[in-house]
Amino acid sequence: MEEVRFCLIGAGRAGMLHANNIAFNVMNAKLTSIVDMDEKKLKEIGKELGVKNLFTNIDEALSKDLFDAVIIGSPTFTHHNYAVKCANAKKHIFCEKPMAVKVSEASEMIGAAKKNNVKLQIAFMKRFDSLYKNAKSIIDSGELGDPIIIKSLTRGPGLPASWYYDINKSNGLLAEICSHDFDSTRWFSVSNYKRVYAEAVNRKTPEIKKEYPDFYDSVVCTFKMDNDVIGTIDSTCPAHYGFDARTELVLTKGMIVIGGVKEEAILTCDIKGVIKGNAFKSWRTRFREAYIKEIRSFIDAVLNETTPLVTGDDGLAAVEIVVAANRSIKTGAPVEL
Amino acid sequence: MEEVRFCLIGAGRAGMLHANNIAFNVMNAKLTSIVDMDEKKLKEIGKELGVKNLFTNIDEALSKDLFDAVIIGSPTFTHHNYAVKCANAKKHIFCEKPMAVKVSEASEMIGAAKKNNVKLQIAFMKRFDSLYKNAKSIIDSGELGDPIIIKSLTRGPGLPASWYYDINKSNGLLAEICSHDFDSTRWFSVSNYKRVYAEAVNRKTPEIKKEYPDFYDSVVCTFKMDNDVIGTIDSTCPAHYGFDARTELVLTKGMIVIGGVKEEAILTCDIKGVIKGNAFKSWRTRFREAYIKEIRSFIDAVLNETTPLVTGDDGLAAVEIVVAANRSIKTGAPVEL
Amino acid sequence: MEEVRFCLIGAGRAGMLHANNIAFNVMNAKLTSIVDMDEKKLKEIGKELGVKNLFTNIDEALSKDLFDAVIIGSPTFTHHNYAVKCANAKKHIFCEKPMAVKVSEASEMIGAAKKNNVKLQIAFMKRFDSLYKNAKSIIDSGELGDPIIIKSLTRGPGLPASWYYDINKSNGLLAEICSHDFDSTRWFSVSNYKRVYAEAVNRKTPEIKKEYPDFYDSVVCTFKMDNDVIGTIDSTCPAHYGFDARTELVLTKGMIVIGGVKEEAILTCDIKGVIKGNAFKSWRTRFREAYIKEIRSFIDAVLNETTPLVTGDDGLAAVEIVVAANRSIKTGAPVEL
Amino acid sequence: MEEVRFCLIGAGRAGMLHANNIAFNVMNAKLTSIVDMDEKKLKEIGKELGVKNLFTNIDEALSKDLFDAVIIGSPTFTHHNYAVKCANAKKHIFCEKPMAVKVSEASEMIGAAKKNNVKLQIAFMKRFDSLYKNAKSIIDSGELGDPIIIKSLTRGPGLPASWYYDINKSNGLLAEICSHDFDSTRWFSVSNYKRVYAEAVNRKTPEIKKEYPDFYDSVVCTFKMDNDVIGTIDSTCPAHYGFDARTELVLTKGMIVIGGVKEEAILTCDIKGVIKGNAFKSWRTRFREAYIKEIRSFIDAVLNETTPLVTGDDGLAAVEIVVAANRSIKTGAPVEL
Repeated sequence: MEEVRFCLIGAGRAGMLHANNIAFNVMNAKLTSIVDMDEKKLKEIGKELGVKNLFTNIDEALSKDLFDAVIIGSPTFTHHNYAVKCANAKKHIFCEKPMAVKVSEASEMIGAAKKNNVKLQIAFMKRFDSLYKNAKSIIDSGELGDPIIIKSLTRGPGLPASWYYDINKSNGLLAEICSHDFDSTRWFSVSNYKRVYAEAVNRKTPEIKKEYPDFYDSVVCTFKMDNDVIGTIDSTCPAHYGFDARTELVLTKGMIVIGGVKEEAILTCDIKGVIKGNAFKSWRTRFREAYIKEIRSFIDAVLNETTPLVTGDDGLAAVEIVVAANRSIKTGAPVEL
Repeated sequence: MEEVRFCLIGAGRAGMLHANNIAFNVMNAKLTSIVDMDEKKLKEIGKELGVKNLFTNIDEALSKDLFDAVIIGSPTFTHHNYAVKCANAKKHIFCEKPMAVKVSEASEMIGAAKKNNVKLQIAFMKRFDSLYKNAKSIIDSGELGDPIIIKSLTRGPGLPASWYYDINKSNGLLAEICSHDFDSTRWFSVSNYKRVYAEAVNRKTPEIKKEYPDFYDSVVCTFKMDNDVIGTIDSTCPAHYGFDARTELVLTKGMIVIGGVKEEAILTCDIKGVIKGNAFKSWRTRFREAYIKEIRSFIDAVLNETTPLVTGDDGLAAVEIVVAANRSIKTGAPVEL
Repeated sequence: MEEVRFCLIGAGRAGMLHANNIAFNVMNAKLTSIVDMDEKKLKEIGKELGVKNLFTNIDEALSKDLFDAVIIGSPTFTHHNYAVKCANAKKHIFCEKPMAVKVSEASEMIGAAKKNNVKLQIAFMKRFDSLYKNAKSIIDSGELGDPIIIKSLTRGPGLPASWYYDINKSNGLLAEICSHDFDSTRWFSVSNYKRVYAEAVNRKTPEIKKEYPDFYDSVVCTFKMDNDVIGTIDSTCPAHYGFDARTELVLTKGMIVIGGVKEEAILTCDIKGVIKGNAFKSWRTRFREAYIKEIRSFIDAVLNETTPLVTGDDGLAAVEIVVAANRSIKTGAPVEL
Repeated sequence: MEEVRFCLIGAGRAGMLHANNIAFNVMNAKLTSIVDMDEKKLKEIGKELGVKNLFTNIDEALSKDLFDAVIIGSPTFTHHNYAVKCANAKKHIFCEKPMAVKVSEASEMIGAAKKNNVKLQIAFMKRFDSLYKNAKSIIDSGELGDPIIIKSLTRGPGLPASWYYDINKSNGLLAEICSHDFDSTRWFSVSNYKRVYAEAVNRKTPEIKKEYPDFYDSVVCTFKMDNDVIGTIDSTCPAHYGFDARTELVLTKGMIVIGGVKEEAILTCDIKGVIKGNAFKSWRTRFREAYIKEIRSFIDAVLNETTPLVTGDDGLAAVEIVVAANRSIKTGAPVEL
């Protein structure tokens, strides 16, 4: 294979970002097909991206030889169905996070990919961000010793679509946003979660709480790893003030702070002495380069038949932690993994 | 009264800092007496500070009319005894944190002060720090809405004396260091703790663990307040890299970051392009002004017969949280307050 | 025209950067030809970029209909010759800075482009950088009043090729590096230079000074604009510690600081409390996005037949200032423009 | 002598700051007398500071044995008269910057102090600031090589009293504010100025310009030292946005940035994503510690009979540069020193 032909499944925010990167920012790849249930949107996007094979149904799309790989960007609860069908049709899979709603679903997705010998990569783009990669290499060098405490946060500016409100269907904030932190902390500590405890509240979205009493918009967690690393995760969504993704480590011989609130190295000061800057507005701009690099990495894995840098096992581990943390919120007790 | 005469009880690190501030940096105050059990140290310090009334025994010191107020800077487990005796002798009390080891002790200290009509102030100096005060006034102004998440950390460079190793006697890291964070989070949220959960490990001091198996040097907590504010506290001690005290809030209409790792606004860059700065080395320099302001505030409260800005009730609340968090570590479950 | 076919003239550092952007990062453009006098290098680069039309001579390249536009990335003293020939052959011109060595050459280049009705854009990429653009829009909004003082610096990590040592041929540091600052200050102030004064020294490269006694590696200038804006420019090259490009403005109602020394928002602190970060290593990474945006902008100007955002007149103005500042160094007096 | 008795001459902004430090923040010193021509103000301040010896005339004050040293905080054009009289009366002299208006006056002040064997210290408080001292020790260590370029700025929030408007009497902005920068750059480079060139404009205070056509409110300079260090100085006053004092060095093996615009390590971000902080409002807060340390240092020099850390020669050098830079503005040419 010299070029990977892609089908986008789910033309939402994340899906469109990947589609645009394939169209404009990566080599050896081509977007040939799109699957989305919204027929009107499908036509518009097809026109915008110059893609002619448009489907409202995955089975139809899979019936012809139009693509080698899929980008699954549809709502979380649909990932399992799409992924299994695509694997069985021998399509390589690049799947948005969270990988699935249930642990069993994530396991089945891994099984299907393995059985059909297709690549399966989960979209934890922080692993491709220059700041996070730089920190990872400092940690791995050992110059600052071993991690003791890891604190990670991701706070998102806007709410996802309404299917997200039902925690039982979507796993909520911990899944849609903190999945990144669960993955980053695992990656940095080279260990798995042993135990997680979470506190959650609904402080900004009382209107959602009426219909969905389990819905929460802010959360803090503590965790303990198998290798005794301890830490905290926190999030709020909608964050209003912007998109905020930072991680901090205490190590036996030092500490690391990754990221900041400010978007750009520009500072103004007005006549009253008020210094102003701007917070990051969006994950699209904050992780622009990382999104390009992760899809390039996936294409390389497909073309060179190597293992993706973020595997289905990483996706599964995050789903396990999300499920455990949500149970902790429900039971008011720490949950062992 | 025009001038407050002071007796220092316990000439350790914090005690000496207060003694020096009274000698050189505050008005209307005079250090007249010192109580310390180490006779040699007592003589040296008396000479250094020009103080002639030196005692190894509190009762003897209290038997003459030498002072109006005491600074209790001795080990935590002695606070209760000194405070009750001084209150009964009608001396005003400025007591280092943590206020006491047991909740009952702290309650008795408050009772003794009330019965004898003397002032009792607890040394939570962060409340007098310009950064923390500035943040408090922004929060109270309401311009950024109500606090949702508060994250606070204090990390200390050096271990206290050996009496600190026995967690059952000292309450450990959570008491000696995180007391500040428990107090700051209460102050910012204007609420009390409802529940606390903690994870602790010993990663830097295995040599202490042998004799004191309960000893931990690193900890993370989550908490929930009565008013639904949630948050995290973390600490490590010894931090080696320096003294680190930072707090961050997510509010309904914005966020606040208080403090940074860097000591001074000076940056060097060497020929290899490595940019360097220095972390804060010590709480003495980081909170230098706050220490002066808190003792000035106490002197004002005594002279003007007003209520101190940090009361025994604030000290008691922190002890309650410390005890609860330590029980959480022991039981592996969240503890209600 | 639907696609702009490019010929790269001069496959040096800047030229190759543009060639790579055309190949991988822009739409509606194609690199079809390369001109470079080094035959061996020419073959290697042709292979690397998949370009088959390779020439050691511009006349030969122009004799066939292979391209619509050229990127002039060759040494400064060759710009005039290439630009005039290409203009006469009706090729659009994207020319690296400095535009030319002599003011008369720059004027002739503008004349040739005008006569032949081709686009001429000068590569002042800072105008396309998000930080500088952001600052420009704040200035233009008037919210901080009018600029009074502008201070700009660019410091480069490595020396250009040896043709650069002869100040009389290359105009030196002020041309090769400070051209950017001369352009940025003109852009921000919306005015032309009235007067410039410069001090220069050779402190790092005594070995070059032997053969080229006029050579300087460090410089500071003051300037006054027609509209009374005053300011300073400074540079050093080689900067060793990295690539450094910052600008600061004092306005009647405030101030603006653009850029910083640090490359990434990551900070480490070692066991000794030394906080470390990294300076920007290269203009390639610092202005990566700006380089892509400027070539995209040129392509748009060609396809849409609009005026480029940075014109030959801007290039000419910078050459005039460079020549004046170099004369100031020689004469020890301010030079009027 | 065990205690230095002080007389304050000129109870203006700087004078009162020193008087308060003597009263409250230094040991072994006492303010016993005040000289000020404004009788009403004199009485108020005497009451405020508890000082009973109040004079409107220096001769009267010197006629009794009331003090050992004087603080000269009166307008610049009066320094020479007061200093010479005090020296002849064997009083040690702590003199605010700028030392004098004319070079000859500064020389006479040095001569009078020498003849009478009294200490003479000039109030360049930046030399006692922890940031500047820290930078000085890094430079002197040689680890970053030798200074090549030094850029320094001081920008002041408010205009001095009206005597300052007449440049011929006060030497203006360059004297009142940039004296600090002239001194810091000399201190860092361990060299004297060889040449200075300045550009000045009046952009904020047209109302002053009417009566005082030479008045300027914004200035930039370049300079060259005897040891080939080159650099720039800039200032604006009134700066409106706050008090701003920063210095930056390029050295043969690295660079140093001293100071920042922001006052405190606190950052807020509102619901629109606007990050806010505050600029330094005043030199009083920015250099609070430095002001205490410089007066302590002077007292030590008097009590221990050692040479002050900032001498009359340093004051004289700054006056020479100020006069040269003002001549450069007038003549439009660089001025040799």
